[in-house]
Amino acid sequence: MPARSELRIAVVGAGRMGADHVARITDRISGAVVSAVVDVDDARAAAAVERAPGAVALPRLEDALDRGIVDAVIIATPGRFHEPVLVPALAAGLPILCEKPLTPDPESSLRIVELEQETGRPLIQVGFMRRFDAEYMQLRDLIISGDAGHLLAMHCAHRNQSSGEGYDDSMLMTDSVVHEFDVVPWLVGEPIVSVEVRKGRRNSLAPEWLHDPQMVLLETKSGVLVDVEINVNAQFGYQVTTEAVFERGIAEIGRPTGLALWRDARRSVAEHTTFTTRFASAYDLQIQRWVAAAERGAIDGPSAWDGYRAAVLCAAAVEAQSTGSRLEVQYAEMPAAYARSASGSPPDAHPEPTQLSNKE
Amino acid sequence: MPARSELRIAVVGAGRMGADHVARITDRISGAVVSAVVDVDDARAAAAVERAPGAVALPRLEDALDRGIVDAVIIATPGRFHEPVLVPALAAGLPILCEKPLTPDPESSLRIVELEQETGRPLIQVGFMRRFDAEYMQLRDLIISGDAGHLLAMHCAHRNQSSGEGYDDSMLMTDSVVHEFDVVPWLVGEPIVSVEVRKGRRNSLAPEWLHDPQMVLLETKSGVLVDVEINVNAQFGYQVTTEAVFERGIAEIGRPTGLALWRDARRSVAEHTTFTTRFASAYDLQIQRWVAAAERGAIDGPSAWDGYRAAVLCAAAVEAQSTGSRLEVQYAEMPAAYARSASGSPPDAHPEPTQLSNKE
Amino acid sequence: MPARSELRIAVVGAGRMGADHVARITDRISGAVVSAVVDVDDARAAAAVERAPGAVALPRLEDALDRGIVDAVIIATPGRFHEPVLVPALAAGLPILCEKPLTPDPESSLRIVELEQETGRPLIQVGFMRRFDAEYMQLRDLIISGDAGHLLAMHCAHRNQSSGEGYDDSMLMTDSVVHEFDVVPWLVGEPIVSVEVRKGRRNSLAPEWLHDPQMVLLETKSGVLVDVEINVNAQFGYQVTTEAVFERGIAEIGRPTGLALWRDARRSVAEHTTFTTRFASAYDLQIQRWVAAAERGAIDGPSAWDGYRAAVLCAAAVEAQSTGSRLEVQYAEMPAAYARSASGSPPDAHPEPTQLSNKE
Amino acid sequence: MPARSELRIAVVGAGRMGADHVARITDRISGAVVSAVVDVDDARAAAAVERAPGAVALPRLEDALDRGIVDAVIIATPGRFHEPVLVPALAAGLPILCEKPLTPDPESSLRIVELEQETGRPLIQVGFMRRFDAEYMQLRDLIISGDAGHLLAMHCAHRNQSSGEGYDDSMLMTDSVVHEFDVVPWLVGEPIVSVEVRKGRRNSLAPEWLHDPQMVLLETKSGVLVDVEINVNAQFGYQVTTEAVFERGIAEIGRPTGLALWRDARRSVAEHTTFTTRFASAYDLQIQRWVAAAERGAIDGPSAWDGYRAAVLCAAAVEAQSTGSRLEVQYAEMPAAYARSASGSPPDAHPEPTQLSNKE
Repeated sequence: MPARSELRIAVVGAGRMGADHVARITDRISGAVVSAVVDVDDARAAAAVERAPGAVALPRLEDALDRGIVDAVIIATPGRFHEPVLVPALAAGLPILCEKPLTPDPESSLRIVELEQETGRPLIQVGFMRRFDAEYMQLRDLIISGDAGHLLAMHCAHRNQSSGEGYDDSMLMTDSVVHEFDVVPWLVGEPIVSVEVRKGRRNSLAPEWLHDPQMVLLETKSGVLVDVEINVNAQFGYQVTTEAVFERGIAEIGRPTGLALWRDARRSVAEHTTFTTRFASAYDLQIQRWVAAAERGAIDGPSAWDGYRAAVLCAAAVEAQSTGSRLEVQYAEMPAAYARSASGSPPDAHPEPTQLSNKE
Repeated sequence: MPARSELRIAVVGAGRMGADHVARITDRISGAVVSAVVDVDDARAAAAVERAPGAVALPRLEDALDRGIVDAVIIATPGRFHEPVLVPALAAGLPILCEKPLTPDPESSLRIVELEQETGRPLIQVGFMRRFDAEYMQLRDLIISGDAGHLLAMHCAHRNQSSGEGYDDSMLMTDSVVHEFDVVPWLVGEPIVSVEVRKGRRNSLAPEWLHDPQMVLLETKSGVLVDVEINVNAQFGYQVTTEAVFERGIAEIGRPTGLALWRDARRSVAEHTTFTTRFASAYDLQIQRWVAAAERGAIDGPSAWDGYRAAVLCAAAVEAQSTGSRLEVQYAEMPAAYARSASGSPPDAHPEPTQLSNKE
Repeated sequence: MPARSELRIAVVGAGRMGADHVARITDRISGAVVSAVVDVDDARAAAAVERAPGAVALPRLEDALDRGIVDAVIIATPGRFHEPVLVPALAAGLPILCEKPLTPDPESSLRIVELEQETGRPLIQVGFMRRFDAEYMQLRDLIISGDAGHLLAMHCAHRNQSSGEGYDDSMLMTDSVVHEFDVVPWLVGEPIVSVEVRKGRRNSLAPEWLHDPQMVLLETKSGVLVDVEINVNAQFGYQVTTEAVFERGIAEIGRPTGLALWRDARRSVAEHTTFTTRFASAYDLQIQRWVAAAERGAIDGPSAWDGYRAAVLCAAAVEAQSTGSRLEVQYAEMPAAYARSASGSPPDAHPEPTQLSNKE
Repeated sequence: MPARSELRIAVVGAGRMGADHVARITDRISGAVVSAVVDVDDARAAAAVERAPGAVALPRLEDALDRGIVDAVIIATPGRFHEPVLVPALAAGLPILCEKPLTPDPESSLRIVELEQETGRPLIQVGFMRRFDAEYMQLRDLIISGDAGHLLAMHCAHRNQSSGEGYDDSMLMTDSVVHEFDVVPWLVGEPIVSVEVRKGRRNSLAPEWLHDPQMVLLETKSGVLVDVEINVNAQFGYQVTTEAVFERGIAEIGRPTGLALWRDARRSVAEHTTFTTRFASAYDLQIQRWVAAAERGAIDGPSAWDGYRAAVLCAAAVEAQSTGSRLEVQYAEMPAAYARSASGSPPDAHPEPTQLSNKE
């Protein structure tokens, strides 16, 4: 095995987000492994560890630090427990990815900022993941480029299907609009200077203790107005959109088409120019699944038999190019071993389509 | 470091596709490393190896096998060199991912099939990556489900911006339509039984030796008609589309919107229902980039200062919920260390938008 | 009344198309009236005449010609009855709009062509209405302009929800694809020189006597290949699309977005540049409905009270521009006469939204 | 000619809107004629009259009333001149279509309302044409139906390419947002109760005297919040959009696709179900142009020769259905008279496509 060292990560908090991170690092991230899952709930930690070969379950981060098995820390506990984890992680001088919020209030956040200052270098990254979304990155690039003139205003919507038991009015701001509080300054390139909140007509389908939706009106330093619809019982789906108004046009993200641009009396969206972008995810998934299959001595895609059949069709098609008329295709008999050998083949193995139901 | 063993892959062929695979495995694939890059061109092999820590450059696959550093093989040489690599890889009993075509002609493909049979289990997977594309998978699921009735016909288009020096008429079939030769049976669930090729009006922008575009008409066993426009000098972009005609509706893939469905007098596309799908790539990219930054002692995203500012805004917004009027926001003074500490921050650091050019 | 003479039209055939034309001319066409409805079925003629004030019902065109009340003729009978109506209309030297087909076979069509020649000028226009569709006209302009290079190929689809009792296999060509037989040469600018028809998998939802869908492959003089999917039991809706392949890009019509264009790595559609196009139909409908309402002594849109309320809001908004804060708006008491005076007002008169059903 | 009486309309004001109305009534409206064009500017009135056969140009509405040639009045002068025209038109008891605004201020509007009351019936309709736009009507139907639950909020944008010389800050409200002041209560079914206006970052491309864009925040009686971006120097095009937020979904109008609906994790738009809606405009335009051509003794569409050629192709296609192979098509020789006889034919007459320019 080549001598490549992998980053050993302790994931603190084994709830939904923490478990997601454990699976992500184990299944899809190169150069890192989960070495410890930390949770005061033993059962939860143990369950998460099963997804991560070689990781140990522990109740406190300090236990993992003592064992010398941690190169970096991901914090995915509820926000009010962040500070007690951040403090020892900073003391150990480790890189930290802390899910939002950093801490639940400005005073404790400022304490963390000061503590980080003492370490002499930035160790904490906060998990505002929108900055890594392709469309948000494209929109920011467009703003910085000035191609469409200065940015003047933005219309944002943040819509969840429904909100849960513990979600209350203040969380509309601290748990949901908090994403706009981070991403708006990052997009606009200047801080937010004022906040206004308006409550309109309530959705009768929202929990009775919640006034949902609400409208937030932000203004940045140079006067860019940003309205945000926060709407966490929207029923129809999950949707996060931003329409950016420029001096010369409009751009919109969060729609099924990707970033749409209105310029010069046209609405346009990008088309691919190469297979490497069009099929980027397919290539990655192909290799990732093949690696997983190889570990269990199998393949997980088109077989050699599929390759043979394609070769027959290629030869027939080249012949058909010169004749211009229809050519019947003949194949050798398929060896029995290919009949059900892999998930991706053979093509003759479709189950019969479900019977058409009477109601249609 | 935890005792997880990683699949050691030899990549044979260090051209465009091979180099892509080396980068992919090194940067984005979990559970695998490149242990060897095999190419008769020493310089090319050496260049590829620089992307893969711990890998060695070798002229022949057999050299890598002899060293005992190979658990699996990826073949990315030109198609006519596949057989001489497949043979020793099969003999070694290793899992193989072979870029299409398996081999250039039906006879040699059948020889490989027979050789594989002798090993007793499927070792070869052919790199028809479309089967791993989300939209192709959705379309196949729709076909199998029978929700829209039986599939009746498909209209396909395969469009490249332009074709290169060595690309000739037969390659329209063997290099491009070959993807449809694989994916059509996989979608339809039955083999292709006839092929017809029609040449229409030539694109004057294509190389003079090429009759481009051409139209291919396929028929599957139960009579599903499939027309394929192969068009490799389409200039405007890269586009691969399929419009599937069902008894009760139409589905189309390869468009900017994702799979579009016509049913019951509506055209519809899927909306997300949860942040885990909407921001799936953002979460992966966030972690992958953070891992890379951690290895060089840095962060690569929102800083603790960004976290503090968000906390200030959350507190202000909660207060604004109760007053209903505009609230000015105040921040502590930003420590100098955050001024340029990371790529993602601070938001005040946008370069001035490019001056609007005179021509607009 | 000003002395403007209106074109007096005899509509021959009072079936679906004929009755549509009677209503169209009476309700929406300027400068023309229906003076006679001709149908051998007395009851059908009488019913159609009720929509057209001043028109008479007659069994034969010759009867209307004898009365001297016909300036022009529209023929909307089944195709096999066209020739006996065309002959006397040509003899009378009248302008004729003849629904497709001109006649059901080439021989009789050629006889009509020769007869028209004898009159010395073109009197017959055939009702291929696609040439008057905005998107078809845009596509033809694009072809003629050469902006996207030469046209190379077209992919067409013609989809009906379902076909009726008397509709048989040959009518797939003579009643449906006939539109492509007219519009393809008109678009391409050259005649069709070959025809091929392929039958694929049958839709089990089509009438048992019909092999539906079928695929038609046309070639024009310079080699432009055109495939046409004819599919008259498509269930999901009515759809007529054309995707045109050019040397430098792709254009598509018949989609919900209007003509879409792929050029230079972007997909784009036109946006309006002025209210006169955006609201063109609204302006026409507003006036047409107001004219109809005026004839019965009523209005059919926003009332003076609506005008007053808008004035109050304008005044409030101008004041609010200078204060920047929220302004409550007060109105005078609404006179009772406006409570239900017109279809468009008052806005307070919405019925209560339907109770949300339990099943959702 | 049948004895149908047409509504004789006096159009007051022969500027852009007035001239448009004169052309509209003359060219496209059934059952009405322009009998008089009234404008203090003699030349402008005379120019407009040329478009309307039989109409007279006059300086004052009273002159037209005295002549007894007016059944109804359209007022298209600037708003401040509306009251002096409304008064005599009301006194004459005539139906009136008055372009917005009714009058420029609430006091004069209320005077008109009271004057109209005295006539005993509604005579005035105000020209808020959005109520006649298909998408606005669909959105209102959706709101009334309650299918998506109660309406909760709306996001509106009103964007013009650029504003002219006399257009000032107050006109953002009185000339542009005035449309929302009418259409919002009509959509929501209840009056607007508060108005707030916010000025954000100015567009540097707007005239220096104008603070453009601005944001207007409206609230209706039951608490529906409506934000309106008014942006009259948006450069890229003309766009009027509304996104309506319901309890169970979202609807959006003013986009290239027509009304889009988000429900049940899908975004959908309507598809046609019949040719009568898909080609409604084409049918109308075909007849309207044929009527105009008939008046000058010509046709303006597919000729008998086009009809003959379609008949040849139909016969060939029916034969090709049974053979399954390609069939060459032969036509009779085209008579010279068809070579350039009408705008729509012959298809062989395309000008050569413009030479591809070097710059591409």
